[in-house]
Amino acid sequence: MADKKISSAVIKRLPRYYRYLSELLDNGIDRISSGELSKQMKVTASQIRQDFNNFGGFGQQGYGYNVAYLKSEIGKILGLDRNYHVIILGAGNLGHALANYAGFEKRGFIVSGIFDVAPEKIGKKIGETTVTDMKDLGNFVANHTVDIAALTLPKAIAPSVAKQLADYGVSAFWNFAATDLNLPENVAVENVHLAESLMRLSYNISNLPE
Amino acid sequence: MADKKISSAVIKRLPRYYRYLSELLDNGIDRISSGELSKQMKVTASQIRQDFNNFGGFGQQGYGYNVAYLKSEIGKILGLDRNYHVIILGAGNLGHALANYAGFEKRGFIVSGIFDVAPEKIGKKIGETTVTDMKDLGNFVANHTVDIAALTLPKAIAPSVAKQLADYGVSAFWNFAATDLNLPENVAVENVHLAESLMRLSYNISNLPE
Repeated sequence: MADKKISSAVIKRLPRYYRYLSELLDNGIDRISSGELSKQMKVTASQIRQDFNNFGGFGQQGYGYNVAYLKSEIGKILGLDRNYHVIILGAGNLGHALANYAGFEKRGFIVSGIFDVAPEKIGKKIGETTVTDMKDLGNFVANHTVDIAALTLPKAIAPSVAKQLADYGVSAFWNFAATDLNLPENVAVENVHLAESLMRLSYNISNLPE
Repeated sequence: MADKKISSAVIKRLPRYYRYLSELLDNGIDRISSGELSKQMKVTASQIRQDFNNFGGFGQQGYGYNVAYLKSEIGKILGLDRNYHVIILGAGNLGHALANYAGFEKRGFIVSGIFDVAPEKIGKKIGETTVTDMKDLGNFVANHTVDIAALTLPKAIAPSVAKQLADYGVSAFWNFAATDLNLPENVAVENVHLAESLMRLSYNISNLPE
């Protein structure tokens, strides 16, 4: 388990390293210098060395990094050396998109339930999973391991459903609803606020270099 | 137009302020103190004052902020006082989700085209927009204003389509493909890397307080 004092900025960069290392491996590259990694990722080599030093360094400078080893070590830090059972709340377009995203299962995120309130959606198959009536949610969570709940719900109901799930013992939420969930401190929440992302883009459009 | 020296951390927080101020207005609250805003947003009052001071302050302490004025000023900084024509590349589940997200139009983001290569998708209506053959993309961009291209494409083709669009003069990209686009500096790119978001969540699960 990683040291708790690692800055959130470093943590934010780790998944990007992981993605690049995965691509290098896919392309048959099994060793890379920090200089070359720096060039590809557009991060300074000293930033890369500093980031990796948080975790003991990982490799020999000059000789370069062993890509498979580095990917595996960063994967362990990110908690990717285990499986996660994911339920998806909301079987709309976004819920579908998440359920069908093959990349998740490859990394150990297994969709084990999809829930909705709409009668025309209940019973339909999405990938390998059948959409279940939201009113069976409590029963499902009581009888299955649920590591992550992905919320693709309207913002008016997302916080109350999240609270109910947290009360059932679900301790991690991937929140796509445009609202804060206000859950206890011992619950992990990762927000994907698409409207906010789009506003950052409009800001950047208004402030592009000439 | 905002001062260029404003830190990206402040810029990242502005959309969240905007979201909260919108909710306050929706709830009929037209004046709020920095203390109350701080409590609701779980940001310190001094952070809020510091952030707002980057833009001249906006309000009187003690007396509080005028919510509508503050929202409108932050909206202007974010470039939300104009409309944007958005095209969506890829009419899969994620493309559908973006096209149907009513919140975008409310904020001035108008979907004016959706493109795909799959014959069974071309000609279908999504909301008000008809899915167009990707091979007509160049012609469309030559004859319509395109402010933003949202990419919900496989990572293998996203960078080349983005480059093509940038060559046509599109200067802002909302990128959902799990890859970097490597576009020129004078192009704005906002990445939504869902796999990286999920990895940050798995990291946080592994490092939850006991």
